[in-house]
Amino acid sequence: MTNSSSKRIKVGIVGGTGYTGVELLRMLAQHPNAQLTSITSRKEDGMLVAEMFPNLRGHVDLAFSSPDRANLTDCDVVFFATPHGVAMAQAPELLAANVRIIDLAADFRLQDVSVFEQWYKIPHTCPDVLASSAYGLVELNRRAIEQARVVGNPGCYPTTVLLGLAPLLGGAPLIDTTDIIADAKSGVSGAGRKAEVSTLFSEASDNFKAYGVAGHRHHPEIKAQLDQLAGSDVGLTFVPHLVPMIRGMFSTIYTRILPEARDVDFQALFEARYANEPFVDVMPAGSLPETRSVRASNTLRIALQRPGNGDRLIILVVQDNLVKGAAGQAIQNMNLMFGLPETTGLNQVAILP
Amino acid sequence: MTNSSSKRIKVGIVGGTGYTGVELLRMLAQHPNAQLTSITSRKEDGMLVAEMFPNLRGHVDLAFSSPDRANLTDCDVVFFATPHGVAMAQAPELLAANVRIIDLAADFRLQDVSVFEQWYKIPHTCPDVLASSAYGLVELNRRAIEQARVVGNPGCYPTTVLLGLAPLLGGAPLIDTTDIIADAKSGVSGAGRKAEVSTLFSEASDNFKAYGVAGHRHHPEIKAQLDQLAGSDVGLTFVPHLVPMIRGMFSTIYTRILPEARDVDFQALFEARYANEPFVDVMPAGSLPETRSVRASNTLRIALQRPGNGDRLIILVVQDNLVKGAAGQAIQNMNLMFGLPETTGLNQVAILP
Amino acid sequence: MTNSSSKRIKVGIVGGTGYTGVELLRMLAQHPNAQLTSITSRKEDGMLVAEMFPNLRGHVDLAFSSPDRANLTDCDVVFFATPHGVAMAQAPELLAANVRIIDLAADFRLQDVSVFEQWYKIPHTCPDVLASSAYGLVELNRRAIEQARVVGNPGCYPTTVLLGLAPLLGGAPLIDTTDIIADAKSGVSGAGRKAEVSTLFSEASDNFKAYGVAGHRHHPEIKAQLDQLAGSDVGLTFVPHLVPMIRGMFSTIYTRILPEARDVDFQALFEARYANEPFVDVMPAGSLPETRSVRASNTLRIALQRPGNGDRLIILVVQDNLVKGAAGQAIQNMNLMFGLPETTGLNQVAILP
Amino acid sequence: MTNSSSKRIKVGIVGGTGYTGVELLRMLAQHPNAQLTSITSRKEDGMLVAEMFPNLRGHVDLAFSSPDRANLTDCDVVFFATPHGVAMAQAPELLAANVRIIDLAADFRLQDVSVFEQWYKIPHTCPDVLASSAYGLVELNRRAIEQARVVGNPGCYPTTVLLGLAPLLGGAPLIDTTDIIADAKSGVSGAGRKAEVSTLFSEASDNFKAYGVAGHRHHPEIKAQLDQLAGSDVGLTFVPHLVPMIRGMFSTIYTRILPEARDVDFQALFEARYANEPFVDVMPAGSLPETRSVRASNTLRIALQRPGNGDRLIILVVQDNLVKGAAGQAIQNMNLMFGLPETTGLNQVAILP
Repeated sequence: MTNSSSKRIKVGIVGGTGYTGVELLRMLAQHPNAQLTSITSRKEDGMLVAEMFPNLRGHVDLAFSSPDRANLTDCDVVFFATPHGVAMAQAPELLAANVRIIDLAADFRLQDVSVFEQWYKIPHTCPDVLASSAYGLVELNRRAIEQARVVGNPGCYPTTVLLGLAPLLGGAPLIDTTDIIADAKSGVSGAGRKAEVSTLFSEASDNFKAYGVAGHRHHPEIKAQLDQLAGSDVGLTFVPHLVPMIRGMFSTIYTRILPEARDVDFQALFEARYANEPFVDVMPAGSLPETRSVRASNTLRIALQRPGNGDRLIILVVQDNLVKGAAGQAIQNMNLMFGLPETTGLNQVAILP
Repeated sequence: MTNSSSKRIKVGIVGGTGYTGVELLRMLAQHPNAQLTSITSRKEDGMLVAEMFPNLRGHVDLAFSSPDRANLTDCDVVFFATPHGVAMAQAPELLAANVRIIDLAADFRLQDVSVFEQWYKIPHTCPDVLASSAYGLVELNRRAIEQARVVGNPGCYPTTVLLGLAPLLGGAPLIDTTDIIADAKSGVSGAGRKAEVSTLFSEASDNFKAYGVAGHRHHPEIKAQLDQLAGSDVGLTFVPHLVPMIRGMFSTIYTRILPEARDVDFQALFEARYANEPFVDVMPAGSLPETRSVRASNTLRIALQRPGNGDRLIILVVQDNLVKGAAGQAIQNMNLMFGLPETTGLNQVAILP
Repeated sequence: MTNSSSKRIKVGIVGGTGYTGVELLRMLAQHPNAQLTSITSRKEDGMLVAEMFPNLRGHVDLAFSSPDRANLTDCDVVFFATPHGVAMAQAPELLAANVRIIDLAADFRLQDVSVFEQWYKIPHTCPDVLASSAYGLVELNRRAIEQARVVGNPGCYPTTVLLGLAPLLGGAPLIDTTDIIADAKSGVSGAGRKAEVSTLFSEASDNFKAYGVAGHRHHPEIKAQLDQLAGSDVGLTFVPHLVPMIRGMFSTIYTRILPEARDVDFQALFEARYANEPFVDVMPAGSLPETRSVRASNTLRIALQRPGNGDRLIILVVQDNLVKGAAGQAIQNMNLMFGLPETTGLNQVAILP
Repeated sequence: MTNSSSKRIKVGIVGGTGYTGVELLRMLAQHPNAQLTSITSRKEDGMLVAEMFPNLRGHVDLAFSSPDRANLTDCDVVFFATPHGVAMAQAPELLAANVRIIDLAADFRLQDVSVFEQWYKIPHTCPDVLASSAYGLVELNRRAIEQARVVGNPGCYPTTVLLGLAPLLGGAPLIDTTDIIADAKSGVSGAGRKAEVSTLFSEASDNFKAYGVAGHRHHPEIKAQLDQLAGSDVGLTFVPHLVPMIRGMFSTIYTRILPEARDVDFQALFEARYANEPFVDVMPAGSLPETRSVRASNTLRIALQRPGNGDRLIILVVQDNLVKGAAGQAIQNMNLMFGLPETTGLNQVAILP
């Protein structure tokens, strides 16, 4: 039907051969208002997408095309599921053609260019675009995203830590913001679909380890947002770990309740804060979340624990790192940017077992 | 909207605390023409379904109710996700109330009552209902299912072996039907959600084994259907194995091509046979299927291999044992029985990675 | 050779059907100074041990015997790999027969009987034996263990947390002992070989969760030892998590360095403290340990991290929960109690990959 | 002790950065008659072996050295844990220096040079050495190995299939040798420690697939040995599959009993054949082997099944692909070649769970 198809958002994906790429494809293939128009890969030019990702057989008929033949300027929106640096290189041309951009890499996550350059070791080539871009954590930044032409989709770890802490920041002082610990655990898909020894099955299976303790790129991203939420300089210790599972992220966040906040009903506070959020589930008091409860869905779940009713408030947050932590959140951003109901195409139930 | 909701099929589930139960719930919660009405569990009476299966939080509001309070006779259809023997005990009452039945256990899979009783060690209490029931393998039995009031949903192994062999049987002789080998491999969820030592993580993980070699209940089920398809007594060797993965089933079927069939184009034969089947995917020549390509979807994929172009035809079949091998197939049956398009509510894309 | 065999320690095991039991058997079968004499199981009386644990075929010829026929009083030492409460019930009779006892459950871990009774919900039936028992963490308590007739083998979590913190406690003040966080992660075998839904493969695989946040039995055990090491009341937050792997334990311990200790060389401190310990490996500065590096071995590895050279000292500790966290440590205790070199029978290299 | 150390076999390893390399190191580090002398890696020259493989910390002090500095000609024996083609390039020089060679790659597995060149796509550079080499499957070829200066260590799949079939071949006709099927399953470590997308954790975990169906290099190796054992042209269908576990190999071998052999006691036949083999365990009648029962040990277990006492004899074989399927078997060969008891250094008990 010409009419309805003409109303569909024309979507391009740059760099669709990784895990965020296949997740975008899986979800967009079933999105009622999106039309997959092109997906680029220099290396796999001409290969059917469904040949690389056999789960898409029968659902996605597109072939990869090389970037120069992709006609991305005909799209309404382009997702970048690429290494850092690619989106900012192509942003000016796309913006000139009135195409909106959602970058799943880091080019538009850090407003401070010097911090970006320090951690990503490349110069930022379009600080003006960066300045006008929005940080795509919908629950914290909805208004800006609705107006944005460029959205920097948050990192997976930041999504869990920020949504886990946001209700505690920015109002009356509740926790000691100088000393927050986030002990975070991620499934292996977070490392991407790159051929590397360290993420081989025989290396990563039946094993548990920490990594990036000396410094992880998501640390400055989390801190920048926390500082803004708190209106002060937040002290954050962040230790990521690798879990032998494909998908899933679990953050255990340790905060210290301020003496003046000891009588606050934190459960009620969190429930109120997220009452109208379709993708944030504050679990009942006493709950313990599991990553599988959100597997392949866009839901993020939060539970609070306060052992012995003492002054340690522990926030437990789970998400699927590839969905709410990446592709799902990107589509949530797209929905907002194009005036669609936020949940459009994102209501999949998590897969359990 | 009263109108549309009055058109929804009222669905009851008996025994919803296992893995086929939660899969039925996951898929029915998003089925546009189904309305979950009641779900029974004697043991968990009153417990919210979403408390046991946290993936359903926000999608299913029902609580388990004890069977006596469940008013199943008000339903249009009742699924039995129970141990063997439960469906046949309740069938007469439900049928009298004009309720249709889809049994995911074995009560209505074997038309020969003596074979049933030999393998399941319980008497069959309603052979007349059995006689009028349909074997719910849609691709082989569509017309009968459309008319049936009782459907016996196939076992998971039989689904793969039967769909893998069906194109070779019943027409001109193509393979030696006296000597077929099915070497089958299943994920651990096939053993159900029962507390047992042998399926503990620490027992089943990082391990591979065969089981049931001396005799598995799916053997007579497969053989009965093969005999019927072939119109003769089929010789079948069936060896199931347990794979350290949650979902997924892989059957490697070894057949011997008859001399007179050596020039048959088997690839074309299979493609033609399943050309119009929405849930059977005959992969391109030379393909090798993977279980993850169908994870959490109702698709079954088949690939053919003929090493050295010799007289061994090897058929490789994958499915998700909980979906096409159980709950998805049951809903496919429901769609047929109620005159809905067969794919209604079953178009989920497989989850990869 | 009569002579050498007469010098072997006669070993009995009570409750050998769990994972600590099979580990004891595996390691004792190759211990040059131990002779497996009897292993009890009321339920499996008469069954060959190697039938239940096929890895022992060809290595262990014993059958399980019911406790009443086991003649444990003829042993030199009896290991209890049983639920809590069994060892203390049998201790008086065995001690009267001059048999030494190593309990792998909790009966002799907590000197404060009221704390024991509060957490384990059973009365302690032999507080006098408890008073004379030794806490079997060799590296902290070697002299007492050498003299002990009863040893309470430490819990798995306590072993990692205590060895991770010991070098920091008891001397000049180095860290804020009022606020220590131990974020601990364990493989599933820590839950034992009991038929339970929550540790089924299909529940625990491809999943990550916290548990026991509101209170875990290892918390009071850790705290009691820390208080003693520190000579003061230590503040400990302890959150255990479940990792989808069979073996392995990883504790991430967060401490705050006191201002007066900012110039301490913690790496040197740890290296000096454990220089002569055969089973504690302080890894080089900057290392990140992995659980697989100790899989199936009695080694515990420690690495220190001090992000940004700030005042957070993070101690990362790995062990195999079934070996250094249970059976290996128990044999290490036995070696000490019988005057053998501590490493006898414990030099297995970890299995990687 | 100068005396005993002077009696130790000086061992070199070429290419020790893969999984067979680390297994050789793990086992040789504890071998009472072996002395690790050098281990080469061009890429990792100077790196401590224990830095790459942290399980070896405290057990192996060697560093990798570049091949030109390795002085391999001073060794008594050199193991090649390298890609195909390396051993044959270095064999002449080593043999001239009186060094024995055990190749874990394929250079000395196939006596027919044309078959080698067809499957491995490289010319064979020393057919004379090949002609004098022995195929290192000890249980079939003990005498030749004892005399050999060069041993071609068998492939992992061939070890299971050949030991599973050997008792049935070469004597009175027992099975139809024109039609044998080996449906084989391997853990992922069999693919080696190479950075490849297809063996990433996120690709291989929670998945099952066949591979190499159109032709696998182990096929001609198995067939050559079977032909020799049977004294005739054996028909073999061989389908390998990939199992989401690190270690372990399971072969399900389907044979057809000849009419004249229907009354043979196959269980007794197998037990008699392997009665004196320390590393082959014929399990009791009715057993079903599991890969974990041999994890990290040099034992291979065989069980027989004959469903319905019919004419299908199914042989189930398990081994650890890295031990009996590679490094353990290589050390077994070394023991034989140097006149040591065959089991020296190879008595590790399998790790379960």
